[in-house]
Amino acid sequence: MPTFGGIEAGGTKFVCAIGSGPDDLRGEIRFPTATPAEAIPKAIAFFQEHGSLDAIGVASFGPIDPNPASNSYGYVTTTPKPHWTNTDLVGPLRDALNVPIGFDTDVNGAALAENRWGAAQGVDTFIYITVGTGIGGGAMVNGELVHGLMHPEMGHMLLPRDKERDPYEGWCPYHGDCLEGLANGPALTERWQVDPTTLPVDHPAWALEAHYLALGVVNMVTILSPQRVIMGGGVMDQEQLFPLVRTEVAALLNNYIQKDELSQGLDSYIVPPKLGAQAGVLGAIALAERALRAGK
Amino acid sequence: MPTFGGIEAGGTKFVCAIGSGPDDLRGEIRFPTATPAEAIPKAIAFFQEHGSLDAIGVASFGPIDPNPASNSYGYVTTTPKPHWTNTDLVGPLRDALNVPIGFDTDVNGAALAENRWGAAQGVDTFIYITVGTGIGGGAMVNGELVHGLMHPEMGHMLLPRDKERDPYEGWCPYHGDCLEGLANGPALTERWQVDPTTLPVDHPAWALEAHYLALGVVNMVTILSPQRVIMGGGVMDQEQLFPLVRTEVAALLNNYIQKDELSQGLDSYIVPPKLGAQAGVLGAIALAERALRAGK
Repeated sequence: MPTFGGIEAGGTKFVCAIGSGPDDLRGEIRFPTATPAEAIPKAIAFFQEHGSLDAIGVASFGPIDPNPASNSYGYVTTTPKPHWTNTDLVGPLRDALNVPIGFDTDVNGAALAENRWGAAQGVDTFIYITVGTGIGGGAMVNGELVHGLMHPEMGHMLLPRDKERDPYEGWCPYHGDCLEGLANGPALTERWQVDPTTLPVDHPAWALEAHYLALGVVNMVTILSPQRVIMGGGVMDQEQLFPLVRTEVAALLNNYIQKDELSQGLDSYIVPPKLGAQAGVLGAIALAERALRAGK
Repeated sequence: MPTFGGIEAGGTKFVCAIGSGPDDLRGEIRFPTATPAEAIPKAIAFFQEHGSLDAIGVASFGPIDPNPASNSYGYVTTTPKPHWTNTDLVGPLRDALNVPIGFDTDVNGAALAENRWGAAQGVDTFIYITVGTGIGGGAMVNGELVHGLMHPEMGHMLLPRDKERDPYEGWCPYHGDCLEGLANGPALTERWQVDPTTLPVDHPAWALEAHYLALGVVNMVTILSPQRVIMGGGVMDQEQLFPLVRTEVAALLNNYIQKDELSQGLDSYIVPPKLGAQAGVLGAIALAERALRAGK
C-alpha cells in the first residue's frame, strides 16, 4: 500500500502527517505558518525523517495557482498574509523530496477527502463550504475538482440583505457585505459584540447567520447544481444552524426546482462533513493519492 | 461525414435542421411549440423526410431531466407551460427514428456549440448565459457540461438590491426579485412601461440592467470560476450593455481576484456569443455529435 505525506497549509498553522486515509494517519505535527523560510523547511524535514513516501499532497490557504501549465503553478499568490505573497510552496518540496506532488486549495482538498472517505462518497457534483475565520468553497463537478480561471472564491458572492434587520456593514475589506463579510466568525463577533460561542442556541444571531448561509446555498444551487452541499468550519459546529439553513433554503427556492433533495430530502442534502477536524490533512493526503495516480 | 438532426425546442417555437455544423446547416423548419401531440410528430416527420441520420440532438426549454439513469430521462419535467408538464420528448423520437439522441437544456446546448465552433473554443470551464424572456445559464467545467442535481437554473440566483434606486418588485412568479425577476426582458418592459428596444442607449434603464447582470456575473465568477462568460439572448442585442457590465464587474470584484481576465482582459472575458441566432439549433447539432461519439 502506498504511503503519502500531507500538508494542511492553513493561514495560522501547518499540519503535516503521513498515511493513506482516515484509518491510517501517523506522526502528525503542527507548527505556526509564520514565514515560508520557517515553515517550508520544517515540513521538508518532517517528511525526510519519515523515510520514503510515494507522493505528497498540499492543501493550502489561498489564493493559489493550481494550474500546472502556469509559470506560478504551486504558488500562494495574492494573499495579504505577511511574508506569503507570491510564495513558491510546491517548488522547494519537489526539489527536496522528488516525489509527485498534488496541490490545491484547502477547500478543494477537503472536498476531495469527503468524496473519497466522507460525506460525498458516490456523489460526483457537490460543494464543500467552510464557515470559519473566512468562508471558502471547494467544488467537484462530474468527478473533477473545479479550478477554471483560478479556483472558486465562494465566500465573496454578493447577497440580498435587509439593512433594517441587520445594519452591520460587513467585515470583508474588499466587498464589505459579501457572504464572508456578513457571515464569517469575525462578523458574528463584531456584529453582536460578544464571543459567538457564548450565545444561546435560540439567540437571533443564529437565525440571521442561517439566513445568509441559506442565501449562499441558494446561489450555489442555482449556479452549480450540486447534488449535495457539505458545510463545515468552526461556525458550523453550532449544530442548530443546520435545520435553520435547510428550512430557509426551502423557503427561498419556493419549490421552483422540484427535486426531493430540496424538499423532504434536505436533511441529507445540506450536511456536516464526516471527516471533522481531520478533513484538512486528509484533503492533503487525498491530493497526494490523486497525484500518484496521475503520475504528476 | 456524419449527418445530424437538431431540434431547438423553445418555449415558443421548435426549430429543426439537418447538418453537421455552422457551415453545413440545411432544410431548417420552424413551427409553434403548441402541444407535444402537435410538435413532436412534426419533428419526426421532418427528420424522416430527410433520409438517414447518424444521430439527433435536442436542446430544450426546461426544466428537463438530462440524467440517463433516471426514469424520467428525456422529459420536460415541471414546466408551468400548458400541455408540456412531464412530457417525454426523447422517447417518441427514439422510437420513431432509432438513432443515438443527445438531450440537454437549450443553454447547455448553446454552451456546447460555442465550445465547438464559437466564442469558447479552447476554453474548458465557462458559462453561457442568455438574457431574454427568461434568464438561463449553461456551463461547462473541465470540458464536461454541468448537470449535477438537475441542471443550473442561474436566472434564479438572489442578488443585492437597492430599493431606493429601483423600487420595482420583480417579475419572477417564484422569487420576485431574483436575477431573472429583475433583469429579463419582461422586467425591463414592466419597470419602464415601454418597449425597451425603443429606449436610447444612454437611458438609465441600461445602467441598471448592467448592474444586475454584473452582480450575476460576480456570483458566477466566485462560485464556478469560469474562464469566460458568454452573454447572449435578445436583451444582450443591446450592445451598449457589454462595456457597462464589464466596468461594473471590475468595480464589484474590487481586485480581490487578481487575474488579468478580470481587469484589462475583461473585453475578452465577458463576450457575446459567436453563433448568434443559430446558437440554439447548433447546440442541438452539437448534442447530436456528442451522442454519436458516446454511442448513446
